Amino acid sequence: MKLEKYISEKRKIVDKWISAYLNNGSEHPLSEIFRYSMSGGKRFRPILVISAAEACGLNAENVIPAAIAIEMIHNFSLIHDDLPCMDNDEYRRDRETCHKKFGETEALLAGDGLLIEAFNVLSKNTENSNISPGAILKVVELFSRSAGHLGMTGGQVLDMRYQGQKRIEAEVLEEIHSKKTGALITSSVLAGGILAEASKDRFERLKLYGERIGLTYQIIDDILDLGEDHQTISFPAVFGLEKSREMARKATEEAVSALDIFDERAEPLRQLAVYLLNRSS
Amino acid sequence: MKLEKYISEKRKIVDKWISAYLNNGSEHPLSEIFRYSMSGGKRFRPILVISAAEACGLNAENVIPAAIAIEMIHNFSLIHDDLPCMDNDEYRRDRETCHKKFGETEALLAGDGLLIEAFNVLSKNTENSNISPGAILKVVELFSRSAGHLGMTGGQVLDMRYQGQKRIEAEVLEEIHSKKTGALITSSVLAGGILAEASKDRFERLKLYGERIGLTYQIIDDILDLGEDHQTISFPAVFGLEKSREMARKATEEAVSALDIFDERAEPLRQLAVYLLNRSS
Repeated sequence: MKLEKYISEKRKIVDKWISAYLNNGSEHPLSEIFRYSMSGGKRFRPILVISAAEACGLNAENVIPAAIAIEMIHNFSLIHDDLPCMDNDEYRRDRETCHKKFGETEALLAGDGLLIEAFNVLSKNTENSNISPGAILKVVELFSRSAGHLGMTGGQVLDMRYQGQKRIEAEVLEEIHSKKTGALITSSVLAGGILAEASKDRFERLKLYGERIGLTYQIIDDILDLGEDHQTISFPAVFGLEKSREMARKATEEAVSALDIFDERAEPLRQLAVYLLNRSS
Repeated sequence: MKLEKYISEKRKIVDKWISAYLNNGSEHPLSEIFRYSMSGGKRFRPILVISAAEACGLNAENVIPAAIAIEMIHNFSLIHDDLPCMDNDEYRRDRETCHKKFGETEALLAGDGLLIEAFNVLSKNTENSNISPGAILKVVELFSRSAGHLGMTGGQVLDMRYQGQKRIEAEVLEEIHSKKTGALITSSVLAGGILAEASKDRFERLKLYGERIGLTYQIIDDILDLGEDHQTISFPAVFGLEKSREMARKATEEAVSALDIFDERAEPLRQLAVYLLNRSS
């Protein structure tokens, strides 16, 4: 299996789903800003939903709503994180951020709207789905838990509170990152498992895999950002560069090992873990 | 039936549910601001959820998650509406607004967190519920549709875009209000119907009832606000005071008539409609 080809194909599929969803013919006041915010991006989380579902024997078509929803939640968080009262960023993905292009009011409301729409994508038109309402409800519970105060939003609160501190403890760093970034990545993997009705044992393995690649993802992000502003809330700042690299390697090994009870359909997940470790952007 | 007593009793029940939920022993970084934002308030929307469920023969205990969730969605919208880039209000319910008390960053994130938590309240611990996962999923769909770009958030976008205009059309006013305020009120009533598995006919009547009391609610709000700043996006400004009063009376009559196929268990809903028309605060 060539992973680059796999990623590129899955990304095209996700782009097609998202584009179809956002261009369904019924325009509304936030259509343009939704499309602007949702275009581009690596589609890493939706690809994880698909790969985890396929590893458990479920066809990608069955996870379209979950894949779109998790990308919407991710993009909502980017819009709000960029706002002046947060990171106050003017550019993202080589384009103006939403509030720079559309104004702060529209950006705030578009973030709210995208977040809410994520739960609507998940819950509507479920009558014709192959997935049971109970399984879909579990994904609603999973995504809301991992996006909320116990996950991404809670991590963001801590991140903002610790901004500007000269030194932070390793424990705090790990809590911030596991909540802010890890929770949504782990949830993407678990959503595939829930929708495929994975056994308890397989579900636990997917959880471990998700947590470990979430950690790798964040460590490598921090290492790649080293050239930019000095960040105290980062793995190299707290552990040093060599130790950080070692932690990422170890987490990747654990992620791959966690999948040893899966057959060859989990090969994309295994290779994705290694890819995240070795990425240069 | 004494409506004041009914309202006061139900409000106490809702307060108790919300307090128990927000003081469950597991503190998190947003606990304090969640409690601050969620204290006080008339609990109008949760009471509607309960009254509609009871009108359809379902006990109030079964709608606790929906009642808490709709109040969380309402309070999320208040926090974000008060922000500097929105209405920039410093006081609400005779207290400082969240961003004035906790800062803009925390208020933004608390609004996000409350909104997300609403969907978590709805979807968790459903195994021990008397309500089917399919019915709960329908409430997730209903609340996300009525809170999102087709409902409350969309209405808020239009409201902000039309701010400062000298005159607005009647159609625009009605669209803004039905989305911004009406959608969530109607949804509160419908949630009770969905959870009680009301027949299609009864569900349609509840929908009509919800839409009509939503309209009355907003007209009376606009009339009560007349003493304050001149607002162009208001019923008295567009229709004049007398015509506005007449519209509210007519809507109330239609709301009460819509319930004529229900028995005496719908008496609270009927009286609530008249109460909304005659309220002075």
